[in-house]
Amino acid sequence: MTELLQYFQQELPHINGFLEGETEKMDGLVRDVAQHVLLAPGKRIRPVLTLLSARALGYGKDDIYPLACSLELLHAATLMHDDILDGADLRRGRKAAHLVYGTTETVLAGDVLLALANLIGAGYGKSRISSILASGIMSTAQGEIREIAHISEPVAQRDTYMEIIIGKTARLIESSCRIGAALATDDREIEDALGEFGLNMGIAFQLVDDALDYESPSDDTGKPEGGDLREGKITLPLILLLEMLDDKEAEELLAGLKAMTLSDERRDEVVARIREKGLGTRTRKYAADYIEKAKNSLKPLPDTPEKRILGLAADYVLTRSK
Amino acid sequence: MTELLQYFQQELPHINGFLEGETEKMDGLVRDVAQHVLLAPGKRIRPVLTLLSARALGYGKDDIYPLACSLELLHAATLMHDDILDGADLRRGRKAAHLVYGTTETVLAGDVLLALANLIGAGYGKSRISSILASGIMSTAQGEIREIAHISEPVAQRDTYMEIIIGKTARLIESSCRIGAALATDDREIEDALGEFGLNMGIAFQLVDDALDYESPSDDTGKPEGGDLREGKITLPLILLLEMLDDKEAEELLAGLKAMTLSDERRDEVVARIREKGLGTRTRKYAADYIEKAKNSLKPLPDTPEKRILGLAADYVLTRSK
Repeated sequence: MTELLQYFQQELPHINGFLEGETEKMDGLVRDVAQHVLLAPGKRIRPVLTLLSARALGYGKDDIYPLACSLELLHAATLMHDDILDGADLRRGRKAAHLVYGTTETVLAGDVLLALANLIGAGYGKSRISSILASGIMSTAQGEIREIAHISEPVAQRDTYMEIIIGKTARLIESSCRIGAALATDDREIEDALGEFGLNMGIAFQLVDDALDYESPSDDTGKPEGGDLREGKITLPLILLLEMLDDKEAEELLAGLKAMTLSDERRDEVVARIREKGLGTRTRKYAADYIEKAKNSLKPLPDTPEKRILGLAADYVLTRSK
Repeated sequence: MTELLQYFQQELPHINGFLEGETEKMDGLVRDVAQHVLLAPGKRIRPVLTLLSARALGYGKDDIYPLACSLELLHAATLMHDDILDGADLRRGRKAAHLVYGTTETVLAGDVLLALANLIGAGYGKSRISSILASGIMSTAQGEIREIAHISEPVAQRDTYMEIIIGKTARLIESSCRIGAALATDDREIEDALGEFGLNMGIAFQLVDDALDYESPSDDTGKPEGGDLREGKITLPLILLLEMLDDKEAEELLAGLKAMTLSDERRDEVVARIREKGLGTRTRKYAADYIEKAKNSLKPLPDTPEKRILGLAADYVLTRSK
């Protein structure tokens, strides 16, 4: 674990330095909102995965930092546009950008970050990198679309849930690994191996996030406790509960979610039952299976310190408590 | 002119066919809004410019249609996001998308179209094409940012106005020509020549648009008459008027625009004076200079039917009445 932490601590100044420099250059109208979202304390897991993926394949040049940050820019752009969609009022423990800076500024700042990420990617002269970025944006938008459809027509189906979390989270993490690989090599099989790693790690990451939503008080995660339930989002812990209920009670709960008519008491009760039955823990067990898959997909890679650190990063996803 | 019209009539079914096919495939949540904006009757000038630019350089393959439509997709995406920013309630003679379909659907449909354009561009395997697309998105967002800043802090300066129209219109038209050239050749000088053509034609296009805003009744343009004035946008005909007024009256008018307190009578009066003084016609004369520049920049190109049609298209920009 110390090796993983050291790697992050050594790379974070480069990553944050680049992001600070880029946002500093932006026009005043969008600078504040870009800094608000992009320079909020964050794990920078996406940039670090790009660095690790490229270096695990022997890429040694320092020109990699902008590329590593491109997925962080895309991620921030989608957070901004999502904020507008969700009406979510908390992000990373802060007020949603559009409530502070206005919808106009937030839509435009998101567009600027999308453009910047594409511009950075295209600068490396490899069209495969542009393809990966474009696919990442498309998957994220489609994931968001599915999630919205799911809120207005809630179903307790695991495959729908999986589609959503793959689109809204896992694909960008997959892309972070893929662009690192694509920079280092033209060997698609090796890129696919790192893509598989990122996809499965991303799924596990979101599963743990969804477990945490029912487990932790809001101080720790910076999000309101049981916030997904409040927003009408059906995540795995709730699906597991719905599968345990008799049909009538499950239907009643789904109907309440759809109509957004659940009382605070009913909501607290649902949260309490999910905790009582240990469904957060069960969700983490599913996450552990995906982490296992992720680590297996690293097998074709040469043995390097970075390969080892990728494995440690995967393990860390399971143990994080916020 | 007949040759130009014939070219458009011959190509429009291919262009519209592709756009219809792509929107048909989209998810239900965004399909309607994408179709509403993208399949509205339009001139399709951007796709046709990509076709003409590539073919003027000898590119003969039919795989060009998706690329030709990529700038139309970007254009539609920026229209959608602009609609949300502007509070504009009319677009191409229809109600703004977000008022009909909702802000969520419109933001997401814009993101999907941006992603699709990038995905299409990356599919041609030339990173230069991805660069051009990314620059186009960035310039458009920055043009929009400048325009918004200009509304809250109105100044009657021609260079500010030029920056805005280059960003919000001319760069995407420049990009339409550049990607066609980049597909056909790696010769950057030739690409730059076509880029110059597009940039100057795009400037002229917007100048004529801004003249039309003061000239035509709303039935013709599908936009409310004097709509720019109503939105607080300072375009060239108004700048020319402000330059004619004494300092005191100019300041008073600018202050009214800034505070959005101009009465309907005052607005009608301004429109009437701009007409009386022929400032729309003077704006068109400036446009004619840019068209001249555009046509000059075609000189390095080989003599082909497409080069001739590009010249005809440039001339048409000046004569259009809607």
